[in-house]
Amino acid sequence: MSNRSGGGALLSVLRLDAGDRMPLYRQLENAIRQQILTGGIPSGTRLPATRQLASDLGISRLTVKNAYEQLGSEGFLESQRGAGTFVANIAAMEQPPEVPAAASLAGKAQYDLSERSGSVAATKATTRLGGVTAFRPGVPALDRFPRKAWATAESRAIRHGDAGLLGYGKPGGLTELKQQIAIHVRDHRGVQCDPQQIVITSGAQQAFVLIALTLLEPGATVWFEDPGHIGARDAMRLLGANVMSVPVGDDGFELAEAIRDHAEADLMFVTPSHQHPLGITMSLNRRMEILEYAKQHNCWIIEDDYDSEFRYSDRALPALLALDYSGRVLYTGSLSKSMFPALRLGYLISPPELVEAFTAAQSLLSQNVSPLQQQTLARFMLDGNFNAHIRKMRSLYEQRRDLLVDSVERHLGDVFELAPCRAGMHLIVWLRVETAAEISVANSIWDAGVDCLPVSIYCDTQRLRPGIMFGFACAPENEIEEGVKKIVKALDGVTN
Amino acid sequence: MSNRSGGGALLSVLRLDAGDRMPLYRQLENAIRQQILTGGIPSGTRLPATRQLASDLGISRLTVKNAYEQLGSEGFLESQRGAGTFVANIAAMEQPPEVPAAASLAGKAQYDLSERSGSVAATKATTRLGGVTAFRPGVPALDRFPRKAWATAESRAIRHGDAGLLGYGKPGGLTELKQQIAIHVRDHRGVQCDPQQIVITSGAQQAFVLIALTLLEPGATVWFEDPGHIGARDAMRLLGANVMSVPVGDDGFELAEAIRDHAEADLMFVTPSHQHPLGITMSLNRRMEILEYAKQHNCWIIEDDYDSEFRYSDRALPALLALDYSGRVLYTGSLSKSMFPALRLGYLISPPELVEAFTAAQSLLSQNVSPLQQQTLARFMLDGNFNAHIRKMRSLYEQRRDLLVDSVERHLGDVFELAPCRAGMHLIVWLRVETAAEISVANSIWDAGVDCLPVSIYCDTQRLRPGIMFGFACAPENEIEEGVKKIVKALDGVTN
Repeated sequence: MSNRSGGGALLSVLRLDAGDRMPLYRQLENAIRQQILTGGIPSGTRLPATRQLASDLGISRLTVKNAYEQLGSEGFLESQRGAGTFVANIAAMEQPPEVPAAASLAGKAQYDLSERSGSVAATKATTRLGGVTAFRPGVPALDRFPRKAWATAESRAIRHGDAGLLGYGKPGGLTELKQQIAIHVRDHRGVQCDPQQIVITSGAQQAFVLIALTLLEPGATVWFEDPGHIGARDAMRLLGANVMSVPVGDDGFELAEAIRDHAEADLMFVTPSHQHPLGITMSLNRRMEILEYAKQHNCWIIEDDYDSEFRYSDRALPALLALDYSGRVLYTGSLSKSMFPALRLGYLISPPELVEAFTAAQSLLSQNVSPLQQQTLARFMLDGNFNAHIRKMRSLYEQRRDLLVDSVERHLGDVFELAPCRAGMHLIVWLRVETAAEISVANSIWDAGVDCLPVSIYCDTQRLRPGIMFGFACAPENEIEEGVKKIVKALDGVTN
Repeated sequence: MSNRSGGGALLSVLRLDAGDRMPLYRQLENAIRQQILTGGIPSGTRLPATRQLASDLGISRLTVKNAYEQLGSEGFLESQRGAGTFVANIAAMEQPPEVPAAASLAGKAQYDLSERSGSVAATKATTRLGGVTAFRPGVPALDRFPRKAWATAESRAIRHGDAGLLGYGKPGGLTELKQQIAIHVRDHRGVQCDPQQIVITSGAQQAFVLIALTLLEPGATVWFEDPGHIGARDAMRLLGANVMSVPVGDDGFELAEAIRDHAEADLMFVTPSHQHPLGITMSLNRRMEILEYAKQHNCWIIEDDYDSEFRYSDRALPALLALDYSGRVLYTGSLSKSMFPALRLGYLISPPELVEAFTAAQSLLSQNVSPLQQQTLARFMLDGNFNAHIRKMRSLYEQRRDLLVDSVERHLGDVFELAPCRAGMHLIVWLRVETAAEISVANSIWDAGVDCLPVSIYCDTQRLRPGIMFGFACAPENEIEEGVKKIVKALDGVTN
């Protein structure tokens, strides 16, 4: 208690602002606390008397008293009757911290990230453009979503639903929604399943994570389509899987090459309806072959049926799950494409024995999925709004595809060779001049304010010819021709 | 092509139902596909002519033609001009599957779950009762949530917001919401942070997962409060951490014991404001000691500030994060308690260098958090509705706590000794007769339709005296006395 007064130190740094929305006594309290914590006023320092500090600062004495009292109750200050108020003896305050303020941390400390977190690098590459612009792949027609119907349905659930809808909800999802999903996959995908085989997830991505955590040991072998789903592949790696690249041929996933080149698989990741991103439909024979492999080797199959609702020329083959009589297929569905991404809902259909484990793992990842959103969607489906929306979107996307294909053929036919596009929400074009660097083409397009993705970002170890992906689903009709013309201008000089 | 006709096999199993909402041709198609897949009609089998099958089944010939055509396009059937329609030669169909139908899978197959998935066992124990009933711990007053204001805010965002609000949203969260959260933690928790240090998560639980994935290697040492947060502990184990139990004393987390008994920590998990579940406030000295330990050993600290908004007798100590000048504290906040669980929003405040890695890991776990919900909340906060709600709830919870404490003291004072309850949303009572089995007491209470949790489910290796937790926040005032009386009746005979 040698240091007689910290008033000087205090006064020199105090910046009280009567115009701030934080009350003066809180500002004072924070300032004193910070001085104590940073060693500006050491343990044992006597603080100025309340009357004196109030007078020095031109504030009321009550303000100072309030601040001292709070800091006293927190343990920073001690009062000694008759002797005044002192900074308490606080452990570990001997060495004042080297870094004086949290704000100045930026760019200073070097932190070690875990090794596994390195697997997320590829994912970052897809996030260059935010928001929704033509031709962003993977985003549905948000301009045509029936917002009013949805707002009404949601508002009804919030105002008049059971109070439990605001709570954590039933683990694994609401029965009403599972029933509607079971009908949906039966009608659209030929899948006969019991609603109890369904876990409602916060999107397909969460389903991949649940599967990896629940069924794979670290180091497990995963055969993965290449090119393939970036997020699913990175998630498998993040969770310790040994991911092996399998090329995609005319019949889809090249099983024979996988068997020849790789260790036995614990899990295969496939997109049979519409290969992600190439759009190839896996042949029936290939489907039967991978089902047979899975059965013989106790291997799991993730069937990611990500945009199967949108086919324009033919009806889809039934889902792989519909052909599986050995219980090896884990079917993942997304509502981000058929409804909208911000809904954050998807589903995982699995053998009934696995549902409990998936549900428990989900509660550890992020608790349950919002019962309010689930209930709203169940009602939206029950009322027929969901099916009506899908029907409308299918015909809208077909129209947008036609516009884009036509426009690209007319304006960019000498630069791009169009891949067939019979389903889904994006068009792939291959560069005719294969020496052109794919990424510089993509960069030029981005710079012109048009969105796209270079196909190579989907590749792991395979090399494809240079190509670009354009999403047409989210592009309003009147922006399609305009977008293509911007690309023409952007590429002038780049590809010649 | 020896087998001349599959008509008999087909006819014997076909069950078409004209009343089903699935069209007849789809029913027929599914039935034939299933017969082919299960070996009921082998490769090379000639199917009945369309006219004959239509006549046998009493349906239109067009229906049969439609079904044959679809199966032809899928590759299951082949037409030979003049010779008829045959089951195609499909690979891997030689051995008919052993299990004839997906529905019969239940209870048959034995699947191996991953070892790590075993860590979720404890989590399951907390889910015995669903929904919201008195006295469920951890659930806010859903009966008093301002539903109308929220419905209006959300409806406005859905109808009139930018279309991007329906999309995936900005990785890491919307700036508007981060700004509001920064103000909230400044005003309520004494934390000065830049909005850019915040990642919006789908709840505190997701923040724990992001931290473990991004900063811990498998096998990392985690010191964990015991009793402590079940979900956080299980998540750490699920993701490979070596979790070590640290007891909780009068000053909180027993750092000295941890140092004495365990390997050096890579991370500590603490709840300084209101120990989870015991409610102890960590002393200032203990806070400084663990900050000093973290600094010296490059150890991370998760500060879970889970219900810090609700204190009844005193103002809270500032958050640990507010005392940290070395950048080792990772602060997790939940909006499930201050708003409602179905909102699925929380936040993680960290040194700015880590934000990008957390954001990338989040995109792998479950994509981004709904921008629609974020925008709605940001507006709700900006309009002052959030602060007003917290103020109302604080006084409501204080009132409910008083009612519960009073009622338990009057009716159950001879059975239970009440722990002090100055903050939070639950009351802990200790059994006076320590020989009574805690779980049988809890079971009796559950059987009477009243919710509660035995304190021991929060324990890892520590043993506490038998105790029960009652949540009072979600219990309407008129149900409190009634609930306590049910407990009195339920325990009659159990504890004497």
